[in-house]
Amino acid sequence: MIPDAHGGRLVDRVLGDAERHRREAELGDLPALTPGTDQLYDLEKIGIGAYSPLEGFMDSATLSSVVDTGRLPTGLPWSLPIHLPVANRDDRVVVDALRPGDDVALIDPSRTLRGILHVEEKFRFDPKKVARSAFGTLDAKHPNVPELLSSGDLAIAGPVDAVAPRPTRRGPAELTPRASRELFRSRGWSNVAAYQCRNPPHTAHEYLQRLTLEREDVDALFIHPVVGRLKVGDYRPEVILRAYEALVRTYCAVDRVVLSPLTISMRYAGPKAALFLAIVRKNYGCSRYIVGRDQAGVGSFYDPYACHRIFDEFDVGILPLRYEEAFYCRECRSTATSKTCPHPASARVDTSQTRIRKALQEGGEIPAELLRPEVAAILREPDVLLKEGEQ
Amino acid sequence: MIPDAHGGRLVDRVLGDAERHRREAELGDLPALTPGTDQLYDLEKIGIGAYSPLEGFMDSATLSSVVDTGRLPTGLPWSLPIHLPVANRDDRVVVDALRPGDDVALIDPSRTLRGILHVEEKFRFDPKKVARSAFGTLDAKHPNVPELLSSGDLAIAGPVDAVAPRPTRRGPAELTPRASRELFRSRGWSNVAAYQCRNPPHTAHEYLQRLTLEREDVDALFIHPVVGRLKVGDYRPEVILRAYEALVRTYCAVDRVVLSPLTISMRYAGPKAALFLAIVRKNYGCSRYIVGRDQAGVGSFYDPYACHRIFDEFDVGILPLRYEEAFYCRECRSTATSKTCPHPASARVDTSQTRIRKALQEGGEIPAELLRPEVAAILREPDVLLKEGEQ
Repeated sequence: MIPDAHGGRLVDRVLGDAERHRREAELGDLPALTPGTDQLYDLEKIGIGAYSPLEGFMDSATLSSVVDTGRLPTGLPWSLPIHLPVANRDDRVVVDALRPGDDVALIDPSRTLRGILHVEEKFRFDPKKVARSAFGTLDAKHPNVPELLSSGDLAIAGPVDAVAPRPTRRGPAELTPRASRELFRSRGWSNVAAYQCRNPPHTAHEYLQRLTLEREDVDALFIHPVVGRLKVGDYRPEVILRAYEALVRTYCAVDRVVLSPLTISMRYAGPKAALFLAIVRKNYGCSRYIVGRDQAGVGSFYDPYACHRIFDEFDVGILPLRYEEAFYCRECRSTATSKTCPHPASARVDTSQTRIRKALQEGGEIPAELLRPEVAAILREPDVLLKEGEQ
Repeated sequence: MIPDAHGGRLVDRVLGDAERHRREAELGDLPALTPGTDQLYDLEKIGIGAYSPLEGFMDSATLSSVVDTGRLPTGLPWSLPIHLPVANRDDRVVVDALRPGDDVALIDPSRTLRGILHVEEKFRFDPKKVARSAFGTLDAKHPNVPELLSSGDLAIAGPVDAVAPRPTRRGPAELTPRASRELFRSRGWSNVAAYQCRNPPHTAHEYLQRLTLEREDVDALFIHPVVGRLKVGDYRPEVILRAYEALVRTYCAVDRVVLSPLTISMRYAGPKAALFLAIVRKNYGCSRYIVGRDQAGVGSFYDPYACHRIFDEFDVGILPLRYEEAFYCRECRSTATSKTCPHPASARVDTSQTRIRKALQEGGEIPAELLRPEVAAILREPDVLLKEGEQ
């Protein structure tokens, strides 16, 4: 069954055309804030219901509840903070003059209207406490922590109305939760499994997708790469999408696979991110969620299987499909996991991202058992990785 | 969870040693019947609880209920007749003199005691009606039908006490349902998936086994080849078992796989046999049951996926894991099904049993993608198929 949105109702806080035009016309008269890229993505996702039941940026009670208990004040599981820090000096001046009940425009660096925040609360929070709760660390080497710690301790909260996202990228369209649900319904799919990724597909990833497609309780696969702001050294969003398009076109039962990007910033929060990303996919209409090893992890910050166990602690209304790490085994002559392969580690072909990336860049041979040649060809192109300052 | 036996209680009608000795001593004084091989297997399986809740051979009311409704008189699903036809002339003379309340010895051709039947009823039945219900046909080309039609219309019914089966074959021991349950418990396995087979393993079979072992709701795999009376041209039981031993030893996560033969005659009854074989595996303690394409089918007697649909009609308390036909695809470079492979049939390597068997016998090349070399080596040995008169 296509699940209800998290909390029961798919949020819709997208500004209608007339209202948007009116707001754009009065933009000069409204106070305006300039949230960072991550928060602009969040604004958009709240608007289209991807973060249901959130209707806006979290207030102090909600943030505290999430940080302390992993739940919204209603008791509904919610693992990560979605708050709006007031990071820059100009914005702090604007916020000083705001009172509950005021409307404030949320604009991007080109001063385009992206949404309206209906102010309910301004509050101070403890960035270290939030970082410890979300990421389990204050380590500056964690990709999300420094930004959180440097964006101040002032936040502004309230419901938002968001400008509908406009298609900006080439490649497959970014579906809204309404659109994906409608698509699933029109194809007669009750049980769609979501696949989270942020890297081009190796055969080890494809293996988990195939295992899932073979299940009789799965009608289709929703490949949903996170291609919002990533970190330096990640593949560029368009590269990830083109690589997936090549895979789906050549190797997938295409009538059972939907590929769509998800523009949010990647939270490398390990288990808490896995839970968050599952909730988001439930909002997109998926009833199953694939969780591999160390999902949304980075470095050695998280126990690689903590992202499995958190689903035992919190029932978020989507069935996790938990898989172990996949690898190609020369003895099995196939991709496998330790659940199926009895051979020693020496029989396994090293599939580390780092090693494959290096081989790709140096023009080294990459066996088709690790990477489909169609995918490898795309990854061998120049300039496929994000550089400093390009996020 | 290890499921309860079908009907709630694992039947135990095995004669204790003292009782067996007493019965053996009085064998000359007891009337005796000489059931066929199939019925001797059934007797043994009733005794050890493999056919729970059956306590004996079916009476007329039970047989009618099963034939007409697919259920026991209690309403519990049960798809195939387990009755004791009185097939030969000498036995008919013995039965003439029997009355309800009498005990009759069941002996094998070497006149060894195999069990005691406590007579409750002698009755006439319609063999054609039974054949039509069980096998859906009266066609003499069906491997089970001629025997059923030629074994007369007289049956004798009542609870049995069976002599405990003695190990007779080399190879892995035949576990009783009590022993398999105890084994599963001792290893901490709640959810064991049963794999039904009657042929040596191809990679297409191994693929379904691997798909199953990768599921997080499966703790282990119980490979349970039916190696009772088979049909002419089938592989010999010991060949099937040796082939599986080679597969398990070389390619399986052995600490999660149990191999044990099941000595019953194979009923090629398609969907009804699939359901019957699932119930039997539930009695052995399995909570999952793998159902491939055309399970227990023969020729083109059954719709290949009727064996999937029957589990929707009858809930027998074991979760069917239904898979489509697997094949090796040259484009995918892996085993797949139509659920995962988008390529035309021309990309598939022909995996028909018949073709592989022919290639094996003629010394032809068999790609490792179809058959593990360790398995192929065993099947290339001379004299591996059952000949006429050897069943």
